Amino acid sequence: MTFSSVNTIWVLLGAALVFFMQAGFSMCEAGFTRPKNTGNILMKNLMDFCIGTPAYFLLGFGLMFGTGSAVIGWLDPGIARDYSAILPAGVPLWAFAIFQTVFCATSATIVSGAMAERTRFSAYCIYSAAISLLIYPISGHWIWGGGWLSQMGFHDFAGSTAVHMVGGVCALIGAKILGPRIGKYDKNGKPRAILGHNLSLAALGVFILWFCWFGFNGASTVGMDSDELVISAGLVFFNTNMAAAVACCTTMIITWIRYGKPDVSMTYNAALAGLVGVTAGCDAISPVGAAIIGLATGTAIVFAVELFDKKLKIDDPVGAISVHGVCGALGTILTGLLATGVSTEKGLFYGGGLHFLGVQLLGVLSVALYVALIITTVFMIIRRTIGLRADRADELTGLDISEHGLPSAYAGFAMSPDALPEDDAPVLVDGDVPAAEAVPVKTVESGALTRPKFTKVEIICKEGRLDALKNALSAIGITGMTVSHVLGCGQQKGKPEFYRGVQVEPTLLPKVQLDVVVSKVPVSSVIAAAKKALYTGHIGDGKIFVYDVENVVKVRTGEEGYDALQDVE
Amino acid sequence: MTFSSVNTIWVLLGAALVFFMQAGFSMCEAGFTRPKNTGNILMKNLMDFCIGTPAYFLLGFGLMFGTGSAVIGWLDPGIARDYSAILPAGVPLWAFAIFQTVFCATSATIVSGAMAERTRFSAYCIYSAAISLLIYPISGHWIWGGGWLSQMGFHDFAGSTAVHMVGGVCALIGAKILGPRIGKYDKNGKPRAILGHNLSLAALGVFILWFCWFGFNGASTVGMDSDELVISAGLVFFNTNMAAAVACCTTMIITWIRYGKPDVSMTYNAALAGLVGVTAGCDAISPVGAAIIGLATGTAIVFAVELFDKKLKIDDPVGAISVHGVCGALGTILTGLLATGVSTEKGLFYGGGLHFLGVQLLGVLSVALYVALIITTVFMIIRRTIGLRADRADELTGLDISEHGLPSAYAGFAMSPDALPEDDAPVLVDGDVPAAEAVPVKTVESGALTRPKFTKVEIICKEGRLDALKNALSAIGITGMTVSHVLGCGQQKGKPEFYRGVQVEPTLLPKVQLDVVVSKVPVSSVIAAAKKALYTGHIGDGKIFVYDVENVVKVRTGEEGYDALQDVE
Amino acid sequence: MTFSSVNTIWVLLGAALVFFMQAGFSMCEAGFTRPKNTGNILMKNLMDFCIGTPAYFLLGFGLMFGTGSAVIGWLDPGIARDYSAILPAGVPLWAFAIFQTVFCATSATIVSGAMAERTRFSAYCIYSAAISLLIYPISGHWIWGGGWLSQMGFHDFAGSTAVHMVGGVCALIGAKILGPRIGKYDKNGKPRAILGHNLSLAALGVFILWFCWFGFNGASTVGMDSDELVISAGLVFFNTNMAAAVACCTTMIITWIRYGKPDVSMTYNAALAGLVGVTAGCDAISPVGAAIIGLATGTAIVFAVELFDKKLKIDDPVGAISVHGVCGALGTILTGLLATGVSTEKGLFYGGGLHFLGVQLLGVLSVALYVALIITTVFMIIRRTIGLRADRADELTGLDISEHGLPSAYAGFAMSPDALPEDDAPVLVDGDVPAAEAVPVKTVESGALTRPKFTKVEIICKEGRLDALKNALSAIGITGMTVSHVLGCGQQKGKPEFYRGVQVEPTLLPKVQLDVVVSKVPVSSVIAAAKKALYTGHIGDGKIFVYDVENVVKVRTGEEGYDALQDVE
Repeated sequence: MTFSSVNTIWVLLGAALVFFMQAGFSMCEAGFTRPKNTGNILMKNLMDFCIGTPAYFLLGFGLMFGTGSAVIGWLDPGIARDYSAILPAGVPLWAFAIFQTVFCATSATIVSGAMAERTRFSAYCIYSAAISLLIYPISGHWIWGGGWLSQMGFHDFAGSTAVHMVGGVCALIGAKILGPRIGKYDKNGKPRAILGHNLSLAALGVFILWFCWFGFNGASTVGMDSDELVISAGLVFFNTNMAAAVACCTTMIITWIRYGKPDVSMTYNAALAGLVGVTAGCDAISPVGAAIIGLATGTAIVFAVELFDKKLKIDDPVGAISVHGVCGALGTILTGLLATGVSTEKGLFYGGGLHFLGVQLLGVLSVALYVALIITTVFMIIRRTIGLRADRADELTGLDISEHGLPSAYAGFAMSPDALPEDDAPVLVDGDVPAAEAVPVKTVESGALTRPKFTKVEIICKEGRLDALKNALSAIGITGMTVSHVLGCGQQKGKPEFYRGVQVEPTLLPKVQLDVVVSKVPVSSVIAAAKKALYTGHIGDGKIFVYDVENVVKVRTGEEGYDALQDVE
Repeated sequence: MTFSSVNTIWVLLGAALVFFMQAGFSMCEAGFTRPKNTGNILMKNLMDFCIGTPAYFLLGFGLMFGTGSAVIGWLDPGIARDYSAILPAGVPLWAFAIFQTVFCATSATIVSGAMAERTRFSAYCIYSAAISLLIYPISGHWIWGGGWLSQMGFHDFAGSTAVHMVGGVCALIGAKILGPRIGKYDKNGKPRAILGHNLSLAALGVFILWFCWFGFNGASTVGMDSDELVISAGLVFFNTNMAAAVACCTTMIITWIRYGKPDVSMTYNAALAGLVGVTAGCDAISPVGAAIIGLATGTAIVFAVELFDKKLKIDDPVGAISVHGVCGALGTILTGLLATGVSTEKGLFYGGGLHFLGVQLLGVLSVALYVALIITTVFMIIRRTIGLRADRADELTGLDISEHGLPSAYAGFAMSPDALPEDDAPVLVDGDVPAAEAVPVKTVESGALTRPKFTKVEIICKEGRLDALKNALSAIGITGMTVSHVLGCGQQKGKPEFYRGVQVEPTLLPKVQLDVVVSKVPVSSVIAAAKKALYTGHIGDGKIFVYDVENVVKVRTGEEGYDALQDVE
Repeated sequence: MTFSSVNTIWVLLGAALVFFMQAGFSMCEAGFTRPKNTGNILMKNLMDFCIGTPAYFLLGFGLMFGTGSAVIGWLDPGIARDYSAILPAGVPLWAFAIFQTVFCATSATIVSGAMAERTRFSAYCIYSAAISLLIYPISGHWIWGGGWLSQMGFHDFAGSTAVHMVGGVCALIGAKILGPRIGKYDKNGKPRAILGHNLSLAALGVFILWFCWFGFNGASTVGMDSDELVISAGLVFFNTNMAAAVACCTTMIITWIRYGKPDVSMTYNAALAGLVGVTAGCDAISPVGAAIIGLATGTAIVFAVELFDKKLKIDDPVGAISVHGVCGALGTILTGLLATGVSTEKGLFYGGGLHFLGVQLLGVLSVALYVALIITTVFMIIRRTIGLRADRADELTGLDISEHGLPSAYAGFAMSPDALPEDDAPVLVDGDVPAAEAVPVKTVESGALTRPKFTKVEIICKEGRLDALKNALSAIGITGMTVSHVLGCGQQKGKPEFYRGVQVEPTLLPKVQLDVVVSKVPVSSVIAAAKKALYTGHIGDGKIFVYDVENVVKVRTGEEGYDALQDVE
């Protein structure tokens, strides 16, 4: 046999596992973001792979593995030229090509998480194609295609730099250029927590990624037909697992200390941080070295997430920049310290000199710089042409409906209104509702009765206006309100949306109902404030209903009537 | 060694992956249907496999692989006879038997999606058994068991026809005989969109299926111990992926053009369409051929879904007929055009004659005809005996509670009432509520005050009656209503339901509350209309409460009182 | 080559699959429990693996595989000594070490399900470490490490006893010591059904586990380089699948008969029961034997779940004790009956004597006893020191927020209030609300009108108090209530919680609103009862609003006014 059965089995199963990382990324990114954007993030995760596959076939593979020069491969649409110089021993071309295709797609898919919930879908398709066509293949050529970094002895076994840091740098630049999601930072630049909508899915995504990482790292031996390869594969499996496990333990402890309680979502992120970090050197270090990488990445992830979120104010909904960018670079550099010499030069801690560490540093920096330059150009062109960021209204409503006409990714579930204030929603102060605007509502005084008049004002409006309304009512002295989720049944129709080709009938539209009970604050002021906060002049601005209330009791104090209402207003 | 390590590893890992497709189908089908039927669809997906496994052991395997005749194998309960004539080289019997078992179960599971949300569970168990016992094995014998089609040179590498089209034809016949879900079509036969309840799960299902398809197609080489097989496996992997990716791109673009926005759920379906399509010829075509199959199936899926939904009015909640039936046939036929000659006769486009194409066509037609005949008989017998379709009331309530006693597959989540109108719910027209029926409600007139009387009528009823109620109120001139989801706490108890052997206490029952505020329309008319719409004479028909309203404001126009209410009524 | 490519591939792929069982367990356990504890159960499932990995590296592996004595291995932190005596042929050390690591973690993870929703997180981390460090390795040494049971011929191929029963016994002891969840049993000790929150996830978990079990059992041949091993692997795959499928069929039928309808969640559990049961003997029995194990475990699971739940009153939210403990023991013992002699002594049914059966029984009993002793000690120490069970208030609120500061694992979804009564919530009887406490609410009598006065009392309170409130109102004769989920917007702030390092702003707090309409029962009694039920003296005790109602209509009877309300009160 010319080809090796075991090598090809190994590479093909690795390819299947690395493909399945797409499911992991999809579930993670969907789970860590809000439900109004779930369909959109799922679509992006699907399409980066589906666009990347033909793109890599048409251009990427040739640029990466063509024996053109130390800087770039060759143009070879359709993978038709001779790659025998670069093919792993015993592995046929198409087996190797599918293995490389799924690696390429992994790099592209990383970006979607950091730019989630606010990127225009068409823009996403374009820059995702650019990554698969051009950006990833060229730096990939330097590292794995026989290019200048590989010639210098740069060691990136399965892609801490080549795959993850490339994706992470694109994510960083993209999230920076896009700006944060509406409401992420308050007026003083203080970040707000925006909770993911489905931690179960996110956890599943992490487990899927970890599972597939055994293929990602393990199959990167691209062979199993010698004692060396077999031993290496075993070590790679053990180290990969060790780094991830130790990273989780580390992050759990750090968050427990810093935040008072062990943080679930950050600890799950830490698994990915450890996996990304160990990817460069998993064949070159010992299990203890892998544990050290786990410690380092499990620490780095917490501080990196805080750094980007709080200091640099770069909004990365899923932590992709920290996981893939920071820990990708960190793991590559740590390989220069921790390599035992089994498959590379010895690292600094194992008696090697500074040379190997220097090469690792040079590789990280040069790739980061190269990727940053190209992707910035790509993003700038997109911003100037079709636009990179979704319209404000679309972002507020959610990208599912605005970009895909999908009323909900969770039809049938009742959703809570988005509790997040818009950072620039106008806050009314007292003077904003002048007495002159007060509407002369004829209140029904209860004749002979001496009880003070209590009135319930029930306001029904769009979910997106809830926060403006809350602010307006706060401004006139009302602090106690009850909000509930209702469905409005009206005649108003907009542009038709389609689900699988069939028009969706929006007969029941989600609304919020806000109830306040007032006594001291005049009903007319409440109505005036609500009208000001809700008025846009479009259909669906809402309605206000006024009811008499006979009594109010405050349970804690036992106060009744006027007194019971005093902290409410 | 008599047996081959690599061949057996390959076949067994393929079997594990193909088994895991059950998870993919379950998540897809659950995700694309409504939450009131989730437990039922999960149970069906589990049981088709669990019934199919012993069924195939008892009858199916022998019928399929026994060297009986060109039409049918032999009776061999328990797989005890000699299959050495048909076993792949180097693969032991039980390894081959498990591989074939999971393929058989895939075919059976396809049907549940198309017949979802309305099929009686007992009926499902029976026809699912019939597919595994009889239907699939016999056509499987023709194609893979040495039968007449295989003797003619029919090429269906991994089962576009043998597995998918067989399932798809059963799905088509089943969905046609069953009829559409209640509410799917309006009085004029226009289809309504019924959104799936969980796109995240559906997307996960697609990714799982795609991942497992590498086992489905890849392991269908049933060996890896020669250069030919190794090369073939690599090509199969590459082609499988290419077809799926291109199909998604194609569908995304077509839906973007046709519906104005790229459709998420249809694009995810397209991945499966591409995978089904490439399954017949993935070993026989080039990557460019695979891309062409992707183009063809990605186009076909959109128009097939519309055809069944809009023209033929066959209600297929998950698109199974289009994906498995149409694209299975299409892919098999396209192999007759695109085969390069590497593993089969050359296809028409590669210089082969019409013969190979003719054989492919003959295979598709004969299998479709055969399956249609048998499954129609099976469905007819079921319909005459235990009944095929769930009772109307059970379907409206949901199959989870009616078939399995499961109050909710998502306990703890608040669900929205089902917004879908029943196609034949009685719509009241004005005359239906004669003045004579009007109940003389003594309304409280506010004495000296000249403001018109506004009244809120609050109606609490079962979710299933919401639509009838809405229609009844519309008919008397009320168009603005607010609907919310509440829990009714009553004493009424029905037949006890069990969850894991423990009786479920239904102390809080889901209800809907519909509020209308009226002035011009008499309160008595509202009450009469509601009573008529809700009355069944059973416990739980609901209650109506009437309140005074002091004022109404319409935000957009600033109108108050009577004027504000005019578009509401 | 010293090492075997195929053996190592087999073992490593097995390791990856067994790792992925963590995802299966996580999804199962999360799905079968309530949403307020989802983050916590996900965190526990992650951390048992992440703590177990270094623990097994530091202590466990040496204790298990060191050739110390028949009772215990040796101390070997970091796996540095020579294991060539125990390594499978052709498999390098680290490949074997990762394979064993993931088996160990499986055992540890089983416990979390049975002890879910009430175990303190810190306690969990400690006893989980104890299992991986000590408990599992020592009994593992007896069975697989050359210890006394293996010397006697005890056969536990892939770990029905060594992995599953060990986990199951820990689960049993833990659940017994912890006691049931609040509300699981009523005053008479009758169990209540506590529904899982996400059957889709649970089903996915089962499918993932089944898929991975092909690695768990299949790869336990730890080699594929001989005809014997290849044949064995095929049989193992076939038997594993057969037992699971038949177990599901069996349970479906039994629950159909016992509960009137086929139970979804129990049937899914049955798949695991069959898999656990067949694990000990899957290489040693025939497919018919596997079917018999499926029948036995599918029967056992139903009665075992009922036994623990109803008779022994041990609250096991996910059925882990029955699945892993009972069926693990059962499968091991049945191997003594059903072994055909292909890889072990013949079982009793196949002409073997009582010796083999006796050894199997001895193994099960001695391991169960040993594990019970040690884990009881561990739990007792934890209970005396840091405490084993979460505080009552934390359990009621949910462990997500109390242990991890996570407001919700499903942010954005509206959740229903927990409908489960606390077993010891005070139930007020009539006399509890003396007339003296009645608050003199000045009710507005409608002057000249003769209609009786109807009043709506609207009570807004914390979700956790709903049940106490319902009981209190029932006690004064009110039976009809409407409950809805609302969001309270107040100023009250507690200790800040962090999500990924950023403080969570709790501006909208989940509350329930309970509405009653009364006429005969005095409003003052309602208010007094509500105050008594809700009063704690803390901020957030709630508010009560009183409204006039003009009329009430009961749809079923057509009654109006006072009569309509009679069954409500």
